[in-house]
Amino acid sequence: MARKERIGLWLVGAGGRVGSAVALGVAAIGKKKADTSGLVSELPVFAEAGLAAPGALVVGGHEVRSTTILDGVKEANREAGLFSDDLIRAAAPSLRGFERNVRPGTLLGVSKTVGDLAKGGRGKKDRSTASAIARLSGDLASFRTRHKLDRVVVINVGCSEAKVQKVAAHRSWSALSKVLVGKSPSVLPASSLYGLAAIETGCAFIDFTPSTGLRLPALRERADLLGACYGGSDGKTGETLVKSVLAPMFAMRNLNVLSWTGHNLLGNRDGQVLRDPKAKASKIVGKDAVVRSIVGGSPETHVSIDYVRSLDDWKVAWDYIHFSGFLGTKMAMQFTWQGCDSMLAAPLVIDLARFAALEMKRGSAGIMKHLACFFKNPIDVRDHDLSSQFRSLVEHVVGEESP
Amino acid sequence: MARKERIGLWLVGAGGRVGSAVALGVAAIGKKKADTSGLVSELPVFAEAGLAAPGALVVGGHEVRSTTILDGVKEANREAGLFSDDLIRAAAPSLRGFERNVRPGTLLGVSKTVGDLAKGGRGKKDRSTASAIARLSGDLASFRTRHKLDRVVVINVGCSEAKVQKVAAHRSWSALSKVLVGKSPSVLPASSLYGLAAIETGCAFIDFTPSTGLRLPALRERADLLGACYGGSDGKTGETLVKSVLAPMFAMRNLNVLSWTGHNLLGNRDGQVLRDPKAKASKIVGKDAVVRSIVGGSPETHVSIDYVRSLDDWKVAWDYIHFSGFLGTKMAMQFTWQGCDSMLAAPLVIDLARFAALEMKRGSAGIMKHLACFFKNPIDVRDHDLSSQFRSLVEHVVGEESP
Amino acid sequence: MARKERIGLWLVGAGGRVGSAVALGVAAIGKKKADTSGLVSELPVFAEAGLAAPGALVVGGHEVRSTTILDGVKEANREAGLFSDDLIRAAAPSLRGFERNVRPGTLLGVSKTVGDLAKGGRGKKDRSTASAIARLSGDLASFRTRHKLDRVVVINVGCSEAKVQKVAAHRSWSALSKVLVGKSPSVLPASSLYGLAAIETGCAFIDFTPSTGLRLPALRERADLLGACYGGSDGKTGETLVKSVLAPMFAMRNLNVLSWTGHNLLGNRDGQVLRDPKAKASKIVGKDAVVRSIVGGSPETHVSIDYVRSLDDWKVAWDYIHFSGFLGTKMAMQFTWQGCDSMLAAPLVIDLARFAALEMKRGSAGIMKHLACFFKNPIDVRDHDLSSQFRSLVEHVVGEESP
Amino acid sequence: MARKERIGLWLVGAGGRVGSAVALGVAAIGKKKADTSGLVSELPVFAEAGLAAPGALVVGGHEVRSTTILDGVKEANREAGLFSDDLIRAAAPSLRGFERNVRPGTLLGVSKTVGDLAKGGRGKKDRSTASAIARLSGDLASFRTRHKLDRVVVINVGCSEAKVQKVAAHRSWSALSKVLVGKSPSVLPASSLYGLAAIETGCAFIDFTPSTGLRLPALRERADLLGACYGGSDGKTGETLVKSVLAPMFAMRNLNVLSWTGHNLLGNRDGQVLRDPKAKASKIVGKDAVVRSIVGGSPETHVSIDYVRSLDDWKVAWDYIHFSGFLGTKMAMQFTWQGCDSMLAAPLVIDLARFAALEMKRGSAGIMKHLACFFKNPIDVRDHDLSSQFRSLVEHVVGEESP
Repeated sequence: MARKERIGLWLVGAGGRVGSAVALGVAAIGKKKADTSGLVSELPVFAEAGLAAPGALVVGGHEVRSTTILDGVKEANREAGLFSDDLIRAAAPSLRGFERNVRPGTLLGVSKTVGDLAKGGRGKKDRSTASAIARLSGDLASFRTRHKLDRVVVINVGCSEAKVQKVAAHRSWSALSKVLVGKSPSVLPASSLYGLAAIETGCAFIDFTPSTGLRLPALRERADLLGACYGGSDGKTGETLVKSVLAPMFAMRNLNVLSWTGHNLLGNRDGQVLRDPKAKASKIVGKDAVVRSIVGGSPETHVSIDYVRSLDDWKVAWDYIHFSGFLGTKMAMQFTWQGCDSMLAAPLVIDLARFAALEMKRGSAGIMKHLACFFKNPIDVRDHDLSSQFRSLVEHVVGEESP
Repeated sequence: MARKERIGLWLVGAGGRVGSAVALGVAAIGKKKADTSGLVSELPVFAEAGLAAPGALVVGGHEVRSTTILDGVKEANREAGLFSDDLIRAAAPSLRGFERNVRPGTLLGVSKTVGDLAKGGRGKKDRSTASAIARLSGDLASFRTRHKLDRVVVINVGCSEAKVQKVAAHRSWSALSKVLVGKSPSVLPASSLYGLAAIETGCAFIDFTPSTGLRLPALRERADLLGACYGGSDGKTGETLVKSVLAPMFAMRNLNVLSWTGHNLLGNRDGQVLRDPKAKASKIVGKDAVVRSIVGGSPETHVSIDYVRSLDDWKVAWDYIHFSGFLGTKMAMQFTWQGCDSMLAAPLVIDLARFAALEMKRGSAGIMKHLACFFKNPIDVRDHDLSSQFRSLVEHVVGEESP
Repeated sequence: MARKERIGLWLVGAGGRVGSAVALGVAAIGKKKADTSGLVSELPVFAEAGLAAPGALVVGGHEVRSTTILDGVKEANREAGLFSDDLIRAAAPSLRGFERNVRPGTLLGVSKTVGDLAKGGRGKKDRSTASAIARLSGDLASFRTRHKLDRVVVINVGCSEAKVQKVAAHRSWSALSKVLVGKSPSVLPASSLYGLAAIETGCAFIDFTPSTGLRLPALRERADLLGACYGGSDGKTGETLVKSVLAPMFAMRNLNVLSWTGHNLLGNRDGQVLRDPKAKASKIVGKDAVVRSIVGGSPETHVSIDYVRSLDDWKVAWDYIHFSGFLGTKMAMQFTWQGCDSMLAAPLVIDLARFAALEMKRGSAGIMKHLACFFKNPIDVRDHDLSSQFRSLVEHVVGEESP
Repeated sequence: MARKERIGLWLVGAGGRVGSAVALGVAAIGKKKADTSGLVSELPVFAEAGLAAPGALVVGGHEVRSTTILDGVKEANREAGLFSDDLIRAAAPSLRGFERNVRPGTLLGVSKTVGDLAKGGRGKKDRSTASAIARLSGDLASFRTRHKLDRVVVINVGCSEAKVQKVAAHRSWSALSKVLVGKSPSVLPASSLYGLAAIETGCAFIDFTPSTGLRLPALRERADLLGACYGGSDGKTGETLVKSVLAPMFAMRNLNVLSWTGHNLLGNRDGQVLRDPKAKASKIVGKDAVVRSIVGGSPETHVSIDYVRSLDDWKVAWDYIHFSGFLGTKMAMQFTWQGCDSMLAAPLVIDLARFAALEMKRGSAGIMKHLACFFKNPIDVRDHDLSSQFRSLVEHVVGEESP
């Protein structure tokens, strides 16, 4: 009998709320202390797809703060009332094991807010972009070797970055590679450094944040050259998820969406980072695209975000949809979503690791468009309708329509 | 050039809120005083399907109250603030024309509430079931002849009936037909009489209410024998429509719906009828099935209805969905739907008339399962997911997948 | 220096969610492990009123189930995610001490639902009403003696009873006292037995539930004869609390409330008991009175309750208020309240104990009307406006207007 | 018998949504085509207070746009579905009469947005501040004479201005009066010019907007010198009204408000003006003060506004209140307010005219603090609790407590 394949899940931001929840989940499922609720990849339709066992993933990652994975878990317990003491106790040995795989992240190309959060932490002020990439790649390679991993999937679950300032070197790999070897200041944000390190080492890279990652012509050129599997961006966890089923409903009923206004309250580190208007802008773009792309006409759309510290990891989103129907009659619908951000994100991260590892095993390369249902801004995909995105996933993975 | 086909739309309950809104819509669209918002059949995907023009439908119907179609329109204007005076003025001549096609409904087999509403009205206390069916059929046949109609679609938009008391004669047409010719009291509710009259006259029959209609083995046997096109039941206009896209979302994300509670406020005649606990029970069954059939596990589901007179035709529904996700984290979502019942129903009635007339033209017979997306309780269809119901509609009508 | 007065708080239903939360709160405040948030009696305006220290209350009670106070606390932790493990650990010794004061409740006069919940528990099937009252009174007297208490306040936090069947003996104490000594089956529900036992022993009695308690002419006659302090009924903790400030707002703005519909979801034992339609009816009466008494006109009011097990102690209430204003314009407001029932009730129970003990010290007797702000159905008080109820409380207790 | 007193109500912004609704209401009530719903001054408690009849007010005003009062009414009918055609027809003659009292407003000191809205309108570009004040005063005086009015109340219902840039001349009347006679550019915003014109002519002045009006030391000095009655500012019509009863509820229950987030959607001209970030800032300050001043601690408060054109005059506000109670338990409440802005404001404007005219008749002078319940930012009043504000009103006007 062939030995079980060994898959590594490398988290950029391992000690954050999402990162530590992912690690806790892997540990808990591995020890059969938790069921697999919330994992798309555990739906019956994928049972025979040959996905790696979620509890067998080996977790590692980069982190710039001093917070360990176990710290992250305990913080979520203390601040947001998540997890029982029992669960934390049972998972602690595994979490300590995963923590031994965590390496210092880079402080190159981070925003001021992240720089502030990382103060006194373990992040490294690498001398140059080239040396940063070399160091990060080394971490990945040694993780793979040490744990005899068949495949490693790198997923960015760090803080949202502002939209990157475009420069000429972003346009082609030949231009960018010249800049990268030089001593000039980095033209790449941190997320791109992690992305580059991943693909240079033969890992898959997925961006679960709205950051730049590999979304620059030069980097995509490089990824394609290297035959890397990659995807993103910005996990579709809550309000936008709901939009992606409600907007099609209005479209299927030929109802005119006059205006769709969404207001989001969030209190975790993501919210803190979003107080930076630039980071907020990059986030809002993603949240706003869904409605416009699905419903016809030219609805007014508004998305706003308030950082409400008291909510911690609990996100509250209120959406008000004003629409008109037969004979111009104006009607309205509103919803309030009260979800725990990291607990909605974490299972999707595990899903992405499993689906990406499957692609690697299958020898695929390039953008993993079939993963669109996981993202607010699926790269190269214009269809934001969750149902049809999900059908694409099923068709790609199991080669048939969902029942 | 071939002459345009002429389609008749026969409304059981022509002077009610839905009936009169349908008539107003047909008139307004015919006179180009309104666009076709809210009409599913006007979506671009159906542009080449060969559907009859909505503004060219010839409207007639049965009614038991003395209220005319124009009265119904004016009542909606006065009580619920619908329609502008201009629109009513422009449509009035057509509505008076349609009213000339309205014939007395039957008082046989109606509930006590409907009987009360019909007091002093034009409903006929037919001597026997057989004579009622004969009279109603005659109305349909003469409508078709008088207006030189190619096809007539009968749609029940009357009041909700209670679930019918089952009797042995319901089990087969041979048994039922014997009872029908006798003098014994009717074993069929009014909705079934209309249904039977329709199919005996070669019309299609669709039940937009939760009433019995043709949903008895004996009647379905008869319908199949006659090669009738039929469908139903209970129009999916508001809260249940939303459920049919939200429930799949939870399923696609492998989130456990713990409980789904819906509370509906409505103030129109439908609400009034629903104060009868039996009528309410038949309605709630339909509203409740959607969630259970889509999400796994065994969620608690609760549906309740309050008759709130002040709302008139404006229905307000509040749903609270309690669910758990990764590592058992409990979360919640709620929505409030504020829609105008008759204005959501009316365009779907026109859609159904057009799609049913197309089936008749195509020579189809039997249950029109492809119309499932229009109903809370689609006959013989177990799939309540709006997206996949809509795909079935498109595939059936235009022979290809929706884009 | 005079010794601190010693106050006993006797909870009917000590092991229930509210009872155990009260006990935990007293213990936690006593050990300075919790602040006094949620305690009305700790507002600055009452600082000099001479109230007993909340952390110094001695807790005891009656209970029919086998559940101990510590069990109740742990159940709330497990099912509803309340309290930290640390807090429970710190309070456990005190809770065990309180538990030693808990005595078997009576199974006489309980509803079938309570009878079922109490199966296998410690409730006593007393031989007769008289012996039940004697036994319950004895428990109170011995509690007072054993702990050298100056005053004991008995508060019913047990399950809601159905409205009692009125009999002739309820009309006067002379009639009732004759029935009570006989062997005939009890004409009093359990809540009245506890009430009677309390006043016969010189304790104050307050009903925090919608049960009968002392609200029968015969019992009130007896209470007045004995000079007892008493009050109730049905704690105003959530939805009704909100109503009691929102309804005055509409009244102060001369806006017409057309309809006010409230729908409550609750999943705790109270909800379970309310599945009995009779118990539900007694609850709904209380919730419904507030709006009608405050706003003019004749608004439609609707109150409904669903038992939603998944919510456990978390109550969700949705209210929809339809109103009209200037020139008849119709508008709407809705709110959703998401509160933890026992955690809203528990501090009010402590407040009531403190305020009642103060009345006893002052030598007052009779209905404590100034406590109206705590109740949905304040006995003998018709004013449901929270602000004016609160002013009455302040004026009564500290002899001046609130600032 | 003494002749009825004649009161003039002068509206700054007479053709706007609020202004025209006020005029329509006065006309409709005068012709007994509408009841007095929404008028605080018509509550029974004020029946004997000697207030002028609301239907007998003589309406005039200033306006910078070309829109007439009747235009304003028709626009509201067309865009927001307000008023029946019948009502408009019945009121039209009175409205045309009122329109004859409307004079050109000034374009001095208006914001760019108002300037744009006023393009092609009747506003006057007065040569200097002094000549503007003289002209506006003249309009008021001639209105009073022409209609033989006993008293005139000027109420600003125009667009919200940005907070004024403070200059030295604002500090005292002696300084300001020197600047006003000069040729230098105006140091006063338009609202202050109207306020000054009002008090110089012996009229009362009330600011229903968040604009500056008389709220400058120099202008208040002048008002006091002239013995003028004045008040403001920023009408408390919707979301803030609700806050002013809900915040006290949390305070009375000793619950800690952790965060209170309000998001407002509005689509009328007010919303359009608020797209100017400066105007928005002045509005938000008023909306934000209420909560902080009532609940203790230091809650996070957030207020945001989106201009949603499709809503026109219908304002939707959603508030989410996160609070903690006993033993630190975190709970939440949310509400959605769906009101018609102008129809909530208009009756309060009539109330203010009546109450202010009464003050003038009584010979009072200075700030009318007893009108605090009408304002988001009551001048010189720190109490934002609606109940106690209302008590102050009743005590001041009828000399006794509200029943």
